[in-house]
Amino acid sequence: MNDLFLLSREVTVAAKRLERLVHRTPVVTSSYFDHISKSHCYFKCENLQKVGAFKFRGACNALFAASDKEIENGVIAHSSGNHAQALALAAQLRGIRAHIVMPENSPKVKYAAVRDYGASVTQCAANLAARESTQAEIIAETGATVIHPYDNNRIICGQGTAAFELLADHPELDCIIAPVGGGGLLAGTALAAFSHSKKVKVFGAEPINADDAARSLSAGKIIPSDNPNTIADGLLTSLGQRNFAIIQELVEGILTVSEQAIIDTMKVFWERTKLIIEPSAATAVAVLLNYPDHFKNKKVGIIISGGNVDLEKLPWQQN
Amino acid sequence: MNDLFLLSREVTVAAKRLERLVHRTPVVTSSYFDHISKSHCYFKCENLQKVGAFKFRGACNALFAASDKEIENGVIAHSSGNHAQALALAAQLRGIRAHIVMPENSPKVKYAAVRDYGASVTQCAANLAARESTQAEIIAETGATVIHPYDNNRIICGQGTAAFELLADHPELDCIIAPVGGGGLLAGTALAAFSHSKKVKVFGAEPINADDAARSLSAGKIIPSDNPNTIADGLLTSLGQRNFAIIQELVEGILTVSEQAIIDTMKVFWERTKLIIEPSAATAVAVLLNYPDHFKNKKVGIIISGGNVDLEKLPWQQN
Repeated sequence: MNDLFLLSREVTVAAKRLERLVHRTPVVTSSYFDHISKSHCYFKCENLQKVGAFKFRGACNALFAASDKEIENGVIAHSSGNHAQALALAAQLRGIRAHIVMPENSPKVKYAAVRDYGASVTQCAANLAARESTQAEIIAETGATVIHPYDNNRIICGQGTAAFELLADHPELDCIIAPVGGGGLLAGTALAAFSHSKKVKVFGAEPINADDAARSLSAGKIIPSDNPNTIADGLLTSLGQRNFAIIQELVEGILTVSEQAIIDTMKVFWERTKLIIEPSAATAVAVLLNYPDHFKNKKVGIIISGGNVDLEKLPWQQN
Repeated sequence: MNDLFLLSREVTVAAKRLERLVHRTPVVTSSYFDHISKSHCYFKCENLQKVGAFKFRGACNALFAASDKEIENGVIAHSSGNHAQALALAAQLRGIRAHIVMPENSPKVKYAAVRDYGASVTQCAANLAARESTQAEIIAETGATVIHPYDNNRIICGQGTAAFELLADHPELDCIIAPVGGGGLLAGTALAAFSHSKKVKVFGAEPINADDAARSLSAGKIIPSDNPNTIADGLLTSLGQRNFAIIQELVEGILTVSEQAIIDTMKVFWERTKLIIEPSAATAVAVLLNYPDHFKNKKVGIIISGGNVDLEKLPWQQN
């Protein structure tokens, strides 16, 4: 617990560090969602963050907290998603080289975005073994430092700055909901809430079809995902070690929702707020709508994790 | 010109009247759009207005500027679009009855929205003659007062309050682009700019496939649309009389864009800003991107007119 206290202080340090680097994203309210959830909702819009997702906060914190020596040979990660773009842009701002290993089935637009930020992109086969061996080869050649997408304290504290800002704007919140995949955002959110007030309850939001965090918390040990299959592609990953330790200590519970609930919620959120959110973010909103006993009459912050969506095929069109 | 001076003062009065009734919508900037347009863009987000469009401003101003006597038998309009919802909600707030005539091919979700605001909805055949005869019948029965969607000074001044707020937030703008259909928004925007400073140039944005405003301005008289066919369903209407008179006097020019430009712009706007805008709004952004000689290095306000889109079929998916 003492460790967690110290770590939670690092979220405040990260928030100061990131002040001029990240967008202070708006907090949006909606009378429609207040009405149907019978609560007071505060949506922290990380879909409006640079690169379209909260991931930029963690990547930026990791690179700007690091000494020049630590990252003198550049940084590296394998990612098909938002971490790739986030790390590429953060490295560009920090003035260092980023190597990104991307599975060959990644959308072309994602390659282009990562390259546009000046990163060096290497394609590999679309499986974890190929991703890790390709990464190892590049490290052997370059000496680049791995920046893990979530199992890394600086990443965790960086992600926590979204909740830090939300609580600075709305200190009276009763609870916060954040989606959970690897656990970077949820652990960071829990640390931010812990340092703000012991009274703020933090909940994780997870698809039923990728409910490793819920099962891990019940079991008291990490139980990796077994063939997860969800539209919320940001939440396929299993919990990291550091993430689990923090979540176990500080999170009130993990609440799960069905694929249909995620898709329905995503669509109605687009319709009503005119804001584009990705399925992972919709998972958190779906938890708000599907657990009225937890949130009725409460002031609830919801971390809208990102807005990166393939506009050619929307989930409600695939039914 | 003296009339226009007096009318432009009415925009200021309307802005005061609407202060507690409408959302003061945010003005969004985007480094991406600044970069590709080589200008400084300020997007006034009326897609985040109540009912998802600027139309609520005009309807509200019309009903709250009216004496109780003027509207004692309720109000009426025929509309398949945003004016229907706007008038229904404004009437609910004003505590009077609204009768809305809607063509039978209107989407069900639009009927439901209008009914949810407490309006009485009458279906009719999907042509102008049927809409007008149905409206006339209801007026004969009820004595309801017609609120024209654009050819009405109170409506025009209400729509102008979006530009009024934009100029209050960014008084240094060089120009403003607004889409033009019937001309309520464009005429109101021109009046707001005129009362702010003679230096602000106002441009209308119009689809090539519905370019009656451009042709009317060239001809010096109203030339109605001849079978307009555009994805920008809010811009199918031809210019109104009052609207034309104001636009002729105060608007710098009407700039037209192709259907493909509208669709491409709409998609990239969604991708980059995570904000949902409708094709009519994308028409104004497309003008910004397609007329670099007009806007390079300028500070440009763009009225994002609305965000009501059928999410089941997006225009770039129909190609």
